[in-house]
Amino acid sequence: MKNDTLPIATQIQNFLEADHRETRDRMRELLCTPQFQRDLEWPRAEHREQVLRWTKLIADEGFGALGFAKEHGGGGDMGAFLAAFETLAFHDLSLLIKFGVQFGLFGGSIHNLGTEKHHARYLDDAGHCRLLGCFAMTETGHGSNVAGLRTEAIYDPASDEFVINTPDRGAWKDYIGNAACDARLATVFSQLVVGGESHGVHALLVPIRDEAGNLLPGVHCEDNGLKEGLNGVDNGRLAFDAVRVPRENLLDRFASVSAEGKYESAIESKNRRFFTMLGTLVGGRVSIAASALSASKSALTIAIRYANRRRQFGPEEGPEILLLDYPSHRRRLLPRLARTYAMHFALAHLGQEFVKADTPERQREAELLAAALKPGVTWHGLDVIRAGREACGGQGYLAENRFADLHGDLDVFATFEGDNTVLYQLVAKERLKAFARAMGEGGAGAMAELISQRVQTWLSDQNPIARTNVSRFLDRDEQCKAFDFREEVMLSSCAQVFRKLKSELGAEEAVLRLQPRLLHYARAYMERVVHRQFSVAVEQAEATGQQDLATALGELLDLHFLSRLSEDRAWFLENHYLSPGASEGLEPEIDRLCRRLRPKALRLVDGFGIPDELLMAPIGLKEVPEDH
Amino acid sequence: MKNDTLPIATQIQNFLEADHRETRDRMRELLCTPQFQRDLEWPRAEHREQVLRWTKLIADEGFGALGFAKEHGGGGDMGAFLAAFETLAFHDLSLLIKFGVQFGLFGGSIHNLGTEKHHARYLDDAGHCRLLGCFAMTETGHGSNVAGLRTEAIYDPASDEFVINTPDRGAWKDYIGNAACDARLATVFSQLVVGGESHGVHALLVPIRDEAGNLLPGVHCEDNGLKEGLNGVDNGRLAFDAVRVPRENLLDRFASVSAEGKYESAIESKNRRFFTMLGTLVGGRVSIAASALSASKSALTIAIRYANRRRQFGPEEGPEILLLDYPSHRRRLLPRLARTYAMHFALAHLGQEFVKADTPERQREAELLAAALKPGVTWHGLDVIRAGREACGGQGYLAENRFADLHGDLDVFATFEGDNTVLYQLVAKERLKAFARAMGEGGAGAMAELISQRVQTWLSDQNPIARTNVSRFLDRDEQCKAFDFREEVMLSSCAQVFRKLKSELGAEEAVLRLQPRLLHYARAYMERVVHRQFSVAVEQAEATGQQDLATALGELLDLHFLSRLSEDRAWFLENHYLSPGASEGLEPEIDRLCRRLRPKALRLVDGFGIPDELLMAPIGLKEVPEDH
Repeated sequence: MKNDTLPIATQIQNFLEADHRETRDRMRELLCTPQFQRDLEWPRAEHREQVLRWTKLIADEGFGALGFAKEHGGGGDMGAFLAAFETLAFHDLSLLIKFGVQFGLFGGSIHNLGTEKHHARYLDDAGHCRLLGCFAMTETGHGSNVAGLRTEAIYDPASDEFVINTPDRGAWKDYIGNAACDARLATVFSQLVVGGESHGVHALLVPIRDEAGNLLPGVHCEDNGLKEGLNGVDNGRLAFDAVRVPRENLLDRFASVSAEGKYESAIESKNRRFFTMLGTLVGGRVSIAASALSASKSALTIAIRYANRRRQFGPEEGPEILLLDYPSHRRRLLPRLARTYAMHFALAHLGQEFVKADTPERQREAELLAAALKPGVTWHGLDVIRAGREACGGQGYLAENRFADLHGDLDVFATFEGDNTVLYQLVAKERLKAFARAMGEGGAGAMAELISQRVQTWLSDQNPIARTNVSRFLDRDEQCKAFDFREEVMLSSCAQVFRKLKSELGAEEAVLRLQPRLLHYARAYMERVVHRQFSVAVEQAEATGQQDLATALGELLDLHFLSRLSEDRAWFLENHYLSPGASEGLEPEIDRLCRRLRPKALRLVDGFGIPDELLMAPIGLKEVPEDH
Repeated sequence: MKNDTLPIATQIQNFLEADHRETRDRMRELLCTPQFQRDLEWPRAEHREQVLRWTKLIADEGFGALGFAKEHGGGGDMGAFLAAFETLAFHDLSLLIKFGVQFGLFGGSIHNLGTEKHHARYLDDAGHCRLLGCFAMTETGHGSNVAGLRTEAIYDPASDEFVINTPDRGAWKDYIGNAACDARLATVFSQLVVGGESHGVHALLVPIRDEAGNLLPGVHCEDNGLKEGLNGVDNGRLAFDAVRVPRENLLDRFASVSAEGKYESAIESKNRRFFTMLGTLVGGRVSIAASALSASKSALTIAIRYANRRRQFGPEEGPEILLLDYPSHRRRLLPRLARTYAMHFALAHLGQEFVKADTPERQREAELLAAALKPGVTWHGLDVIRAGREACGGQGYLAENRFADLHGDLDVFATFEGDNTVLYQLVAKERLKAFARAMGEGGAGAMAELISQRVQTWLSDQNPIARTNVSRFLDRDEQCKAFDFREEVMLSSCAQVFRKLKSELGAEEAVLRLQPRLLHYARAYMERVVHRQFSVAVEQAEATGQQDLATALGELLDLHFLSRLSEDRAWFLENHYLSPGASEGLEPEIDRLCRRLRPKALRLVDGFGIPDELLMAPIGLKEVPEDH
């Protein structure tokens, strides 16, 4: 009840940051100290140095090891690690990625793929930056298709060692963060060959530099040079020329090799073993998704504050009009604000599911969710930054106003930790497999029948007059139903089309032909999840009794729903879920909601809780200095 | 006939570059010489130096003055100037903008707004870089609303001089290319005050630096610092503190001031005078549009060649699949390729109209066309670069592969030379005014009647069965009809809605509320123009008798049409122009066309004629070096 008297921006921030607030505040406070001041014009070499220095400072405060077990000097709290990561993303994204590489990928690979001997030996040092490392998975020739990696680790029983080899140029490890300068130890993914038999991709720890930072014999390294962004991270290429490591360097949680050269794994299927190993790395995807949203929040905060200050054109007499009072300007920014809120709750849900996933089934669920949300939110981030940059005109083009580094840094988020398009296909295929399983052995007939039955149920549920009415979509149940309907119909029609294509063209070609449809379906799945979690959050807000908070979030929910519905309204028209008249009514309704939310827009970005010291952009500060 | 035996890529290039081929080849050849080699990692200061050096080299070859009259050392050929500019955009876009500022904006303002005395004194020097200048229009507080500029030029009859003043921080000239370092003379736009009366915005030549490069007394300058891109251009801010220039420095083609302080202009209306002056600057918008398309061609060339080399995933046995053989990858790249062709022909048409515009009516037509196409093509460019970057994965993120600088440089093209959103509104309002004029004095009733009549005619023209048939849209007449229909219906419904809003809310609020609808309409207008010009070009290709050329362009035309139709198919469904079934058939038809065009994709980008030396990107070269 007391909450109800707090300023609305504070209520919002408290609600958004309900989990791990203390970790978030501690990180925010640290980043606002003078030693974290940054200069957007630093040349690359200096930027890299600063990022390394900052990474160590953050590790000194215990943030790096937050996710590792307590017995290895960690915090034992993966949720807190995520919260810290999300907050860190309000600062320099190069720092974020350096931090993610060192503690999430490098440390995380030891934590998740290694066993006690590795934990005891490395985790404490890795978590506190006494041992810098890198995560060498991707190769020039293989990024998405990790199973096709070509680096080899061949067991040599004579010396009880693995011999690591890079067969050719395409098998160089590429884009590896921390590799160009700082890492001393690398988690190297390679085809494990024991007794002449290949067992697929496994991870080994390979020392690459000595204490003085010199490359070790047989290790080759190239700097990736200038990138579009993230230039504070030293990405590089690595190759191995008969580099030997002791047998114990195999990260052997899921498979081990005995001194005699006997390969053993509790997971028999090579394929399942591979995906089990990869699955343990899903934390990276979860963190990257959350941090992309933080970047969107920065961009929106800047663009909305500027739109509430900048005037242009207007009546002959009196002041010019504020940009945010133009309907088209609101239409550019406010639905993106609503979506940022929607994504926030969806990602909070993902974080919780990920942390709580204690069975293989729940892990797979969390993986599916991460694979759907990571593309959704990283593309959303890029979309927000682009729109925000343009909405700030010439000011948006100056580096000091942040859109340049936000875009350059975030662009690769659509590629790394799983290429977005590949992930969407993965999601769709998983869902399709589950659907086929649920169909059982009834074959095409059963499927067709079930589909037609479901669609009929959906349609007969609908009042034919309601189809023509836009305002029904302000009803929460109707909102959920619409996105459920789309997802269900798309999934079943994918299944149906696939059967048909398969019988005509064979399975391989059928999967290819189905691709564009699968991508559309995966988006529909993602939208359903996002909307559902936003709805749940609004119910929670209502339960707090904080009326202003609940109202604002409810309006954002409506705006988000309607703008997503409008974006894909062709589909709803094609499937007779919307009448042409109702469809035409969507945009005016969206404009109306934007108008209603306009007075709250500033408070809604204040609620993201980004301190001016981190936001930096002169045009986006809460208080703008006089000379701007 | 002989043409028919040429390789198809050559046929295409010949067709695309039919105008001013010799200028294009000469520019291309110059840019491929060693002195134009560039380094994407140059620090800003060095980049600026190189760009200045290059600008002078290009001027030495006569390209700078191509558009000026022959009697002032120019080439007297504006079309050739445009062709040179378009070709230059295959090189560094900082060079392009520096070139554009010096010759197009600075030189162009003297050429178009000045009179003989200015031409004689400055043009030859400006055209050959003996006099570097800048174009100081935009202010921090006023970019789009140029009429609201606040710099003042007050005539002082006692000394026969103008006194230039910057009243406050918001009135500093901002983002001015060439201003931070190199310009010695500035075309300054300011409110002209004579005898205490303000006559609106006029341009004056104001010396800002001496021969040694020192700022002159009363002139203040700040560097704009790091930008998202175009860092080879020295953008800066300028302020004037009682800076005096002789009366003759007023660019007085459209208005003059006598020694006694009498203001005279042949154009009586202040408003019309203002737009007449601005109108003469449309060349900048035309050139910027053309160069944005060149950048799109670079991005597509890289992405498509990479997609034809890069393999990922595939069958257990045999090589992995080329990216370009994935339907979803084709769907990302080939419709954008088709649109790049479409835009090419639309812009070629614009260039011709612009060069030939010899009456005020034709000039206004060319201005309208430029205002519609500039947003369309600059947004297309950004969209292509984004899609290309992602389609190239990690490689696309490395600076060496060009997407970074293409995006960073091109991003501001959506803002400068007229903010895209503002331009679209301008287009829509102009068309709406013309429509209202055509309606005459009949009032709302006449309008409603006419609209309903037109829609009826359209609809009754349609065979109801045809609505359900996708393949009719492979008919060229049907294609044009569809986009004509959309534009016409949207325009008339804008007019209708405006009348209604105006009676309810008053004119000012009605214009605001109409905004989102106007933007949608302006896009429809642009799409109609683009498609029409593409159709005309295909007919011309057919008339050459070069069958392969005509077939390829015809397929691109169909693909372009269908993908644009599909993008806005909700509108066609809402307006009963498409049946739900036909609408659902669009994407499969697009996929089919992409499959058919796939074998030609490489030749279609080769036809853009971008030499490897300019393209630079290792993954996008015609011949890739062995170690990549």
